[in-house]
Amino acid sequence: MVVKGSSKLDAGHLPLKLESGRLLFIDQRLLPDVLEYFDATSFGDLCFAIKEMVVRGAPSIGVAAAFGYAMEANRRALDTNYSPEFSHDDVTRVISQSKLDSLVVDQKLLSDLARIKSELDATRPTAVNLRWATDRMHSFCAALIAKRVNARQFVEATLDEADRVFDEHLKTNLALSTHGVAVVPPHAEIITHCNAGPLAVCGWGTALGVIRLAKMHGLEPSVYADETRPRNQGSKLTVWELMQDEIPVKLVCDNMSGYLMSQKKIDLVIVGADRIAANGDTANKIGTYNLAIIAKHHGVPFYVAAPLSTFDRSISNGSEIPIEVRDQAEITTINGIPIAPSGAQALNPAFDITPSNLIAGIITEVGILRPPFEASIKEALAK
Amino acid sequence: MVVKGSSKLDAGHLPLKLESGRLLFIDQRLLPDVLEYFDATSFGDLCFAIKEMVVRGAPSIGVAAAFGYAMEANRRALDTNYSPEFSHDDVTRVISQSKLDSLVVDQKLLSDLARIKSELDATRPTAVNLRWATDRMHSFCAALIAKRVNARQFVEATLDEADRVFDEHLKTNLALSTHGVAVVPPHAEIITHCNAGPLAVCGWGTALGVIRLAKMHGLEPSVYADETRPRNQGSKLTVWELMQDEIPVKLVCDNMSGYLMSQKKIDLVIVGADRIAANGDTANKIGTYNLAIIAKHHGVPFYVAAPLSTFDRSISNGSEIPIEVRDQAEITTINGIPIAPSGAQALNPAFDITPSNLIAGIITEVGILRPPFEASIKEALAK
Repeated sequence: MVVKGSSKLDAGHLPLKLESGRLLFIDQRLLPDVLEYFDATSFGDLCFAIKEMVVRGAPSIGVAAAFGYAMEANRRALDTNYSPEFSHDDVTRVISQSKLDSLVVDQKLLSDLARIKSELDATRPTAVNLRWATDRMHSFCAALIAKRVNARQFVEATLDEADRVFDEHLKTNLALSTHGVAVVPPHAEIITHCNAGPLAVCGWGTALGVIRLAKMHGLEPSVYADETRPRNQGSKLTVWELMQDEIPVKLVCDNMSGYLMSQKKIDLVIVGADRIAANGDTANKIGTYNLAIIAKHHGVPFYVAAPLSTFDRSISNGSEIPIEVRDQAEITTINGIPIAPSGAQALNPAFDITPSNLIAGIITEVGILRPPFEASIKEALAK
Repeated sequence: MVVKGSSKLDAGHLPLKLESGRLLFIDQRLLPDVLEYFDATSFGDLCFAIKEMVVRGAPSIGVAAAFGYAMEANRRALDTNYSPEFSHDDVTRVISQSKLDSLVVDQKLLSDLARIKSELDATRPTAVNLRWATDRMHSFCAALIAKRVNARQFVEATLDEADRVFDEHLKTNLALSTHGVAVVPPHAEIITHCNAGPLAVCGWGTALGVIRLAKMHGLEPSVYADETRPRNQGSKLTVWELMQDEIPVKLVCDNMSGYLMSQKKIDLVIVGADRIAANGDTANKIGTYNLAIIAKHHGVPFYVAAPLSTFDRSISNGSEIPIEVRDQAEITTINGIPIAPSGAQALNPAFDITPSNLIAGIITEVGILRPPFEASIKEALAK
């Protein structure tokens, strides 16, 4: 076997897995009705899957991109004429073992890899984890090429590296959750927005990771899940995941947070993040900024839970983070059925920026960062 | 003809009309796909229509209740065994003219009328216009009974009174809009929430009435319409109405207001109201409170447009306004199709309270009321 599966990727409801050399994503567009895998083995299908949110959630996208990069890099490295859809197990059938050992991966591959990276980077502009993962894979592959490894070594090493990306994400999120539990009082009532659970975050979760661990610690948290228009990740994914964990959850519309907080029902807010600037300004799913303002107005602490890979030190503040604007049809239709008049115009920004002055703390794997964020982030990233 | 139609009720896309003695409502649940009338002639169907939001919008509900009250009062007054579905034109066919003249409406009818009123009042608890309209019809009928009018006079007078309720609403909203135009700068970009246009407000509109008149005055306003989850009155009704008026409108999700305001796109917010307390605290469609907080945070003026009949002087502040909690299925399904996991719990408050300190002004038919609202409201109501 040239390509090995990861045991981490074979358990439970993980967002993605390698099976017989094929890259499979839970099709998050079909949940909660249908639990079905999408075959993202070909590079075209992989890019489609990220763009169309078959796989979603910044960390899961990062891991998906790492595996996708590795597989496509391997296809290019083997310089075959085989269909781009071939699974990695096909390699062992089609290419002789001796050829794998004798074929040296050469310098010319680098320009192919740059194209792979730029195509992946273009799929979703806002989340930084994607770029973080492709940067890492790209440097890793460049180093392999410089070492003049043979094809077998290259193929094995790239998939091992993608597996490490996944593995580190999982460990990171567990560490992050352990720190986060400190801000959850017993019987806490928590609002969360969008989905930052196992599907979004490599099988564990950031915002939901904290809540899941709080439940394991006997703190009996309960959750109000924002439905998160227009894609309804809250209704479809967060509620589904929390129900499976038997954590009490009530679905609410995104516009009900003021009502809930004015009724003194809410102890804290926890959300995930797609990119965090050096000053703590946080890009996350559209509606997060509204929720942060509402929380501030009511004196409810607002926490962001995100691994350090979410920080973009190249960006000083949120105004520099590009905001993806998606198809109007996401607002004017639901499941393909129109809910607005024919010809209606809509505006569909997919993310917004929450300025750091609305954030009580950022929960990371090295601890909870507190204001002033510029200093605490700098210190955390230096570790 | 005992019962006359109102010419006001026969024009364009009015939310309701009397036709051949039948009370017909535009079925607002079916818009924008289908423009169809719902026959609310029977009292049971009328109550259903208000409860299930066939007719909606506080002023339109008030007018619907006035007509419904009149028609049911007439059926009781005639003390017939006819089916409660009979149209008013049936009266002329079934009851002899001489009987109509000789039958005196007696005191015993009052307890029937009290039942009609309490059934109507129970249909929707939050909007005050409904109760305002039933109070008015009830006092009016009690006075007729005290005068010992005959059946013909009673039937004619009750429908005339309902017609006056309608007529006054229309005039009031035109007056209100004339005052409101003063707060709309040229080329204003305006956010509105829910639907306070012709369908909701007897053929003209409060919040949309101001915007429509601004367009007539050449101010070229444009609108961002909140979709207004969970019933999507924004997507389905506001966008539809504004498109017909050729006022530029973009549909947005309720959670995008912070994004829009942070991009400096918004000049003001105008919404309608379901009930306003003596201190200016305003009950309106769920999400209004969120929008008001977001506007305050960005220094964007937030206006309420509502006729004086929306004020409830019996209530000193918003905490006393009852909030209707509606069926969870409004959130977990769309057009009958599930969008959440089977068994998911939801919380569905239909309204929220915007405290008066978030409101820049309340646009009424007697002018724009400004803080301190307790004084300005008192003065306006004394007029």
